[in-house]
Amino acid sequence: MNKIYINPEQKEWQILLQRPVLDHTALKATVSAILSDVQLRGDAAVLAYTKQFDGTELNNLVVTKAEIAAAPDLVDVDLRKAIELAKTNITKFHTAQKESIIKIETTRGVVCYRKSVAIEKVGLYIPGGTAPLFSTLLMLGIPAVLAGCKEITVCTAPDKNGNVPPIILFVANLIGIDKVYKASGVQAIAAMAFGTETIPATYKIFGPGNQYVTCAKQMVNAMGIAIDMPAGPSELAIYADESCNPGFVAADLLSQAEHGLDSQVVLVTTQASIAEKVQQEIEKQSADLPRKEIVIASLTNSRMIVMENPNDAFTLLNEYAPEHLIIASDNAESLAELVINAGSVFLGHYSPESAGDYASGTNHTLPTNGFAKVYSGVSMDSFVKKITFQQLTKQGIQEIGHAVELMAAAEGLEAHKKAVTLRLNENQ
Amino acid sequence: MNKIYINPEQKEWQILLQRPVLDHTALKATVSAILSDVQLRGDAAVLAYTKQFDGTELNNLVVTKAEIAAAPDLVDVDLRKAIELAKTNITKFHTAQKESIIKIETTRGVVCYRKSVAIEKVGLYIPGGTAPLFSTLLMLGIPAVLAGCKEITVCTAPDKNGNVPPIILFVANLIGIDKVYKASGVQAIAAMAFGTETIPATYKIFGPGNQYVTCAKQMVNAMGIAIDMPAGPSELAIYADESCNPGFVAADLLSQAEHGLDSQVVLVTTQASIAEKVQQEIEKQSADLPRKEIVIASLTNSRMIVMENPNDAFTLLNEYAPEHLIIASDNAESLAELVINAGSVFLGHYSPESAGDYASGTNHTLPTNGFAKVYSGVSMDSFVKKITFQQLTKQGIQEIGHAVELMAAAEGLEAHKKAVTLRLNENQ
Repeated sequence: MNKIYINPEQKEWQILLQRPVLDHTALKATVSAILSDVQLRGDAAVLAYTKQFDGTELNNLVVTKAEIAAAPDLVDVDLRKAIELAKTNITKFHTAQKESIIKIETTRGVVCYRKSVAIEKVGLYIPGGTAPLFSTLLMLGIPAVLAGCKEITVCTAPDKNGNVPPIILFVANLIGIDKVYKASGVQAIAAMAFGTETIPATYKIFGPGNQYVTCAKQMVNAMGIAIDMPAGPSELAIYADESCNPGFVAADLLSQAEHGLDSQVVLVTTQASIAEKVQQEIEKQSADLPRKEIVIASLTNSRMIVMENPNDAFTLLNEYAPEHLIIASDNAESLAELVINAGSVFLGHYSPESAGDYASGTNHTLPTNGFAKVYSGVSMDSFVKKITFQQLTKQGIQEIGHAVELMAAAEGLEAHKKAVTLRLNENQ
Repeated sequence: MNKIYINPEQKEWQILLQRPVLDHTALKATVSAILSDVQLRGDAAVLAYTKQFDGTELNNLVVTKAEIAAAPDLVDVDLRKAIELAKTNITKFHTAQKESIIKIETTRGVVCYRKSVAIEKVGLYIPGGTAPLFSTLLMLGIPAVLAGCKEITVCTAPDKNGNVPPIILFVANLIGIDKVYKASGVQAIAAMAFGTETIPATYKIFGPGNQYVTCAKQMVNAMGIAIDMPAGPSELAIYADESCNPGFVAADLLSQAEHGLDSQVVLVTTQASIAEKVQQEIEKQSADLPRKEIVIASLTNSRMIVMENPNDAFTLLNEYAPEHLIIASDNAESLAELVINAGSVFLGHYSPESAGDYASGTNHTLPTNGFAKVYSGVSMDSFVKKITFQQLTKQGIQEIGHAVELMAAAEGLEAHKKAVTLRLNENQ
């Protein structure tokens, strides 16, 4: 993160805020072949790809009850308590998103309402590897269970010995999910999209993954399977003013930068001196980070931008539409009013992104790649359909029926009109 | 609608409930060429396709203020009043969907909330032709305005004389939309996706259309532009029991059947005699319908199914997941509890689908093709992003910080942990 940009002109913003370009075209053929194979051969195909990519030969894709029962004892007690605290907070915040039914009488005798009904079958993809993302299982599983999804299917990678990490099983069990399958990558997405003998087909697939998984999700989406949202690399923008603690700001930028080589961080501030102080802190703090190479690589995608005033700064930030936005200012609350496009916003000096990633209660599955301009993060909304209902009484149809007849006729839909006329004339 | 199916076995349902298959693959090359051309040449391309497909040579794609001002006088006074009533009801129902901000203190010192913020730029596609769908403009435009979308772009087809139907302009003006453009089909979708010199690029495109429009929306969606929902032909299912009025049921089935050649209607009932009575009514009523050919064609896609009891009937209906579902029964309210998958539900004998299409207040842009299993119809949700916020105090980070440290470390994200540690140790 070498260069600091001072008051860039608006016409330069697009280039300045450019994200690492992702092109999945080259992957399509590979991904498509695996999708088709799983669709055709089911379990046999999933088992074969598991052998090929995960290096383990399984007899069965199902995680057994015994494996789940054994998991808690294999997880550190303090970590279990930490996860339970996170579960409590995530549950509280998401429970508040449940919608109650409000009946609206739009005209006398015309009552309309909307009811949230859980999507029956959902699939959660939890990436495995060296550090299994159990926090993602919390973030996707808790709202799925709260919403009342009947069949929640989890797919995650087995290790070389054919086991799923105990921490994943502990979390699944803790939040009330018992269908966990040993399947990773494209073959897992295919299984949850089309179903196999063992893994159920689902209506909507959630969860992050590498570029193959992202490509697979896009491709099954085009075939009619819903997905949580389009995906891209993780990113963080920080607005910092003179009230900020440059050490905290640097630590937050570094925390985002360690996610992956293509992560992006952006610092927007009102004074060049702040950017310089943060820069110094970054150099100091990054020295002893274990993922230092990743951090340095992803900092090359990153920018420090000095804007003349807070309004200009937020205009630029809204144009960027960051997944995560930290407002490191004593005025965070009032500046929050200027936010139009962001996934999740962290207010003040004591709200690091890590808090939201794990335990504040908000969801960490958020729109990246500028999609925050139009998509929301995962919430209870993501696990339900909202069905509308209307009930007209005899009086109700008398009140609005004539208007419906006129409008239907004007659109040339005579039978639509007639369905009303018949009812209006019932007693004549 | 000749055949009546009695108690079909569950394994037969899939074939019985099969929808007309839509395959856009053949269109992709044509659609893709127009998309690229508009992306490259902008207005010039849109004007050329307008000449080619709409048969009119325009100088300008913009509908002028003068054209809008002249529109109301060209619309019948009674129809205007009908539209105003519809506007009132749609406004009432959608206003009730506005979410207020609820701040949740998940742990002492950790406050989380969610705020709905309008998508800044939305595009509404309103099909033209012989019967311009002004009702669709009401259904998309009203929530867009209520949500506070800053730039609402409407594209609709000009007629041979280069004019947009006055009723469309009357509705646009009535609901507070002033950016209307003369562009139809794929070129309109392309313009709203990529922007031209005249037509602004938008972040999300709404609205129905023919198979070319549907294909274009899918293709721009894959390029990162959001769309309202995947589309298919319109459809209606009716559950009718012995309390139903067979004449009303027949009229409702016919109203759906007139939408298009590929519309589908399904009648599910508990007695064969009801199906027979409805069948007779259909024959009687269809005789003098102006769109009789369409009605007859789409009835060939349709089914009458007799199930043993209401529970089985609703299991089948949920498997079908109809866009529209009428419950023609005295027990409509309690039967409504059995609905899991549907776009919009019409309760009782006086709630024809036409009421919801125009004026009850619910939205008529609904998921078709079985997508009601996972998607909701258009609502205020469709025009906003829900941004989450969190604010931790010093106490807040002390309360959850240690849990975050443990979880971050367990996921191998040392810098995430450090961002918390630095704050916990601030005063040490």
